[in-house]
Amino acid sequence: MDITLIIPIAGFVGLAFAGYLTWYVFKKDLGTSDMQEIGTAIRQGAMAYMKRQYTTIIIISAILALLIAALIKPTPYVGLSFFVGAAASALSGYIGMYVSVRSNIRTAAAARRSLNEALVTSFRGGAVSGMGVVSLSLLGVAGIYYIYSNFVFSGPSAEVASSALDAAIGFAFGASFAALFAQLGGGIYTKAADVGADLVGKIEAGIPEDDPRNPAVIADLVGDNVGDCAGRGADLFESTAAENIGAMVLGLTLFKLFTADPFNWTTEEALVWVFFPLVARSFGIFASLAGVLAVKLNREDKDPMSGINMGYYLTCVLAAIFFYVATYYMFGDLFLYFFGAGMVGIILSIAIVYITQYYTSGSWRPVREIAEASTTGPATNIITGLSIAMETTALPVLAIVVSLLGAFYLGHAAASDLDGSVVNGVIVDLTETDFLIFGFYGTAVATMGMLATCAFILATDTFGPITDNAGGIIEMSKQPEEIRKRTDRLDACGNTTKALTKGYAMASAALAAFLLFGAYFERVAAKKFDGDLSKAFHVDLAQPEVFAGGLIGAMLVFLFASLAIRAVGKAAHAMINEVRRQFKADPGIMERTSKPDYARCVDIATKGALKAMVLPALLPVLVPVGFGIIMAALHYDAPQAVGGLLMIGTITGIMVANMFNNGGGAWDNGKKYIEAGAYGGKKTPAHAAAVVGDTVGDPLKDTAGPSIHVLVKLLSTVTLVFVGLFVSL
Amino acid sequence: MDITLIIPIAGFVGLAFAGYLTWYVFKKDLGTSDMQEIGTAIRQGAMAYMKRQYTTIIIISAILALLIAALIKPTPYVGLSFFVGAAASALSGYIGMYVSVRSNIRTAAAARRSLNEALVTSFRGGAVSGMGVVSLSLLGVAGIYYIYSNFVFSGPSAEVASSALDAAIGFAFGASFAALFAQLGGGIYTKAADVGADLVGKIEAGIPEDDPRNPAVIADLVGDNVGDCAGRGADLFESTAAENIGAMVLGLTLFKLFTADPFNWTTEEALVWVFFPLVARSFGIFASLAGVLAVKLNREDKDPMSGINMGYYLTCVLAAIFFYVATYYMFGDLFLYFFGAGMVGIILSIAIVYITQYYTSGSWRPVREIAEASTTGPATNIITGLSIAMETTALPVLAIVVSLLGAFYLGHAAASDLDGSVVNGVIVDLTETDFLIFGFYGTAVATMGMLATCAFILATDTFGPITDNAGGIIEMSKQPEEIRKRTDRLDACGNTTKALTKGYAMASAALAAFLLFGAYFERVAAKKFDGDLSKAFHVDLAQPEVFAGGLIGAMLVFLFASLAIRAVGKAAHAMINEVRRQFKADPGIMERTSKPDYARCVDIATKGALKAMVLPALLPVLVPVGFGIIMAALHYDAPQAVGGLLMIGTITGIMVANMFNNGGGAWDNGKKYIEAGAYGGKKTPAHAAAVVGDTVGDPLKDTAGPSIHVLVKLLSTVTLVFVGLFVSL
Repeated sequence: MDITLIIPIAGFVGLAFAGYLTWYVFKKDLGTSDMQEIGTAIRQGAMAYMKRQYTTIIIISAILALLIAALIKPTPYVGLSFFVGAAASALSGYIGMYVSVRSNIRTAAAARRSLNEALVTSFRGGAVSGMGVVSLSLLGVAGIYYIYSNFVFSGPSAEVASSALDAAIGFAFGASFAALFAQLGGGIYTKAADVGADLVGKIEAGIPEDDPRNPAVIADLVGDNVGDCAGRGADLFESTAAENIGAMVLGLTLFKLFTADPFNWTTEEALVWVFFPLVARSFGIFASLAGVLAVKLNREDKDPMSGINMGYYLTCVLAAIFFYVATYYMFGDLFLYFFGAGMVGIILSIAIVYITQYYTSGSWRPVREIAEASTTGPATNIITGLSIAMETTALPVLAIVVSLLGAFYLGHAAASDLDGSVVNGVIVDLTETDFLIFGFYGTAVATMGMLATCAFILATDTFGPITDNAGGIIEMSKQPEEIRKRTDRLDACGNTTKALTKGYAMASAALAAFLLFGAYFERVAAKKFDGDLSKAFHVDLAQPEVFAGGLIGAMLVFLFASLAIRAVGKAAHAMINEVRRQFKADPGIMERTSKPDYARCVDIATKGALKAMVLPALLPVLVPVGFGIIMAALHYDAPQAVGGLLMIGTITGIMVANMFNNGGGAWDNGKKYIEAGAYGGKKTPAHAAAVVGDTVGDPLKDTAGPSIHVLVKLLSTVTLVFVGLFVSL
Repeated sequence: MDITLIIPIAGFVGLAFAGYLTWYVFKKDLGTSDMQEIGTAIRQGAMAYMKRQYTTIIIISAILALLIAALIKPTPYVGLSFFVGAAASALSGYIGMYVSVRSNIRTAAAARRSLNEALVTSFRGGAVSGMGVVSLSLLGVAGIYYIYSNFVFSGPSAEVASSALDAAIGFAFGASFAALFAQLGGGIYTKAADVGADLVGKIEAGIPEDDPRNPAVIADLVGDNVGDCAGRGADLFESTAAENIGAMVLGLTLFKLFTADPFNWTTEEALVWVFFPLVARSFGIFASLAGVLAVKLNREDKDPMSGINMGYYLTCVLAAIFFYVATYYMFGDLFLYFFGAGMVGIILSIAIVYITQYYTSGSWRPVREIAEASTTGPATNIITGLSIAMETTALPVLAIVVSLLGAFYLGHAAASDLDGSVVNGVIVDLTETDFLIFGFYGTAVATMGMLATCAFILATDTFGPITDNAGGIIEMSKQPEEIRKRTDRLDACGNTTKALTKGYAMASAALAAFLLFGAYFERVAAKKFDGDLSKAFHVDLAQPEVFAGGLIGAMLVFLFASLAIRAVGKAAHAMINEVRRQFKADPGIMERTSKPDYARCVDIATKGALKAMVLPALLPVLVPVGFGIIMAALHYDAPQAVGGLLMIGTITGIMVANMFNNGGGAWDNGKKYIEAGAYGGKKTPAHAAAVVGDTVGDPLKDTAGPSIHVLVKLLSTVTLVFVGLFVSL
């Protein structure tokens, strides 16, 4: 049986499973009419925002698609794939969102009965996103490749594969382009609403979180959905798409090696190198499917996190087993090396989970230091938090360095094994470049290992806003204390999983970076050096234009982060003024005699987010393309200079995103640590200082940080698509 | 006449001029006995700290010197030079400090008579540092080279020069090693005291800045001296030393080119390439000398900044003229290219001054945005400030990129001019590597252009703490309003010049980076490839170990910044608790019936700074050396991997230092903008929020940011010294 058949099977099974989960969640009851009223307000706000956001994205994408269709070879297919990628990303976000804003109310209703039922409802609601996104991405990439290679391009098989992949790169670029908008727009929305609700509601008016008197409370709950749920969904959609296509491009170089002398494999046989990433992803869908079904609690008093962990471990173990099977079937004698590389990826993902917990959980030094610094006011809280935030880059970077070198080394070792062996009567003599490609492919396989659990991880992420919303609905509809405690426990668990997902997304972006660089070099070789990879595999910082590219790349990340943060600052500023205005204009709000104008706050967040997302989202497209064109016009080595921009932009992005995600998480939990009773608990100056820290951390961890994951991968896809342009100038 | 004779002449004239300025300042009167009492307290605190700090530095340096003397060839001279470099740096810091803590009281006394006299006194006091540091650095580098090349090493001239430079590199490493301690220790001291004084004094107790009731006020005034004055002095001492030696190492490659066929220059003639950096520096001393003498005010109502600007412009014009003379005499037909490169450096320094002013002065958008965000509280102030801080990297990076490429291009063009010309009957045929070396040398000459005004710039920097102190003395001794206004005007001007100096120091570090990389490659070639530069001139990020080095380099900067900031947080925490304790224990302090215990606060800052500076200062030595040894042990290409660490560490350092310096300056002036009356002025919630921002910015702009300048250059010198070790493993 052809093992690649598993690709469509997994894709459709994944979609069917997402359909089953939707049915499972939708048949649950909707709770009281009070609860439904709130749920409807959230749903309407969220869907209205989504509609406007994706209208903007699709218009901008359509314009860019036309440009690409005209400029980038093979015309017009790259432009076409770009648009399909952007649209598929939008569709993924929309589906996830559609289910999530309907799961929150059902989770709240289920919480009235049991913690287990609430956990299963919310987790399965989240898993619709996870399964849907990963299956759609798999089907999209495979479908695009299938159509192009069978119906559009013809000729020798390597050329067909090359052209089909060239066109498919457009799909990855479209997905990351739409993802950046979605993550940025959603991130700005959620934090503007959150900061506005917290600063005026909690601090100035002294009312609790999710109090119905707070005019920004609905906007805040909507924000959780559009930011964490739709944004992260788009992020991981593009991750899986871009990294699959990048790995396939790398696989193409091995395809060429193995169809040539002395191996002379058939096209069928050699295509394993190209299809392995898709097969690995397919197996990952089955592993995640089993993991999702395993999430439950058998006792009411157990930590819901233990139920999720059970599912996660099952997914990891199954993924490892499936990986063994896939590498064994596809790589023959070399399978152990690539199985090892896959394990490197799985182990890295577990290491990152532990490191993230150390830095963002109240049980260890970092968060406690922030809490202690809060006793001397907001300034020392911020200073200590910044220091912790920058420190958090150290361990993840070490883990990534060890994994990258390890996976590379395993790929390299596979080449060593092959080198000197006798094939068809000839001694194999691999070049230095061949060794390099095997090494790169090793990192690609490690990335596939890490991403095998992607659907499950995404489920835990979307689970976060659903429980958060459920808690809000319970709080606002004044349910009994006991039920509230249940949703609080789920919510705390959702905060942890959200932090973990961000660490995972960042580490996978870092690990994937090297495979995407490899793909970039392959394209440079194809376009500039007639396929001679040894000439393309260089990003030499000793060349001044490459160093200049590096400076620009690093600067781009800082400038992007600046714009993302500023956008939140501005939108939050407007929100704060609106909430203050409502409290002042209508004293009845605080006395519960009149209702605040929720819709106006939702509208302000929507407008602020849409207006502010455009410039920062265009920056990572315009800067590398502009720089490449200028370098080409100055007769510098533009592809290499852009390579410098890409690589150092990636390194800087890894640093800044780590700093923002973990720092923000630590600030958040520093506040929670005080709220749990340390240093006098709530209503103390220390608590007020910790709230300032939490507020500062919010746009870092929920807007700028996650957007930088997408930025890093967008840099890879934009340079992959446009490299031909720099070369031909 | 041999133009290199100007080197000792300039060195001794510079020292004599520093002596004259000291005499000029010291003959001024000391003011009232009240003033003297305060001045004495500052002086004693500062000198006591300096003694303890340099004792620590010299002990650590002595241990490291022994290690280097034993390990690094040519033994034991590198170790010896290292110790001399560290000691010379300590001496420079000590001299500057000695004069500055005696100039503050004289400036205060002079302010009772006229603004002009106060300006001239404080500026000349600051210029003692500037002149002393630059002259000592010049004499040190030239002296070390002279002694080694004439009395220690013998053999063919290129080998003698190479060994002498190898040994002299130790001097640069010693200088940067001591500088990192001095900048860090001073930076931690000054900000711990400042944050402690501000948070409790200004915010909690509501007393004004420099109020004698504040127990931390003397520690705060001491801190201005040990941080800005001694720290920056050490920073620029090492800059001038490291960059001179780096440029000389690069010059050595050209020396070898021109003493070989077909040029066959004599040793004398070819040494111009080695000596040019020292000659350029010598001319710079004369230009700065004239500039310092030109600083004065002819009318009392004029802005003191105009007096300083007058001196600066004169220095720039003279530096340009002298540069013309030096390049004309030394480079013959090629002089125009190198004169152009020098101009690139001078223009970059002016551009950086304008950019820094835009971001840190209250007249433009950035600072005003921060002030406006303060109206919605400390959280939005911090969010906006962080956004501005990250934005400020964009324009300086663009200016640096254009300058680097421009200077490189000019050097390259000089090579093109030479290539193909007929010399001694032979057509010159330069290799690609020769072209590269000319390009690198172009960036070295641009750096020399930028650093020509160094002595003047350092004078404006040290001027800052002197006027700050003078203002404090006037305030504490209750002088009349009119006199206070004079020192306030000087102080405002000092704040501007401090911000400008930091921008200048950072840009010069960035420009110098490329020449230091060039020197590094030259050493790699000498140690690993028998002098074949074409093999050494690579830092190829496509190699996984180089990319790993890059990740480690970027992480190192973040970790270092984290430790530096945390050190301030911890020391400030102790200070805050002490000030609170004193206010609580003795209510008489607030009622002015009893005096606070200043000495205890001074002691806490001293201990905090010394304890906290050691780990972060050792990090940038241990990490690159450890990484290099591990890579060598794993049989990777260690010198190239360390090159990746060095280059990406440098790029990341440029970003983070820019962000911290300019961000901190913007927060500071955002507060001042409100204090000047915007948004209700002092004692409003907006002002309180702006004070939080200012406090957060303090450790960034005065501890971490300036220390990162030194870190970046220390990375270059440490890798230059240790590269032999990685190769021989």
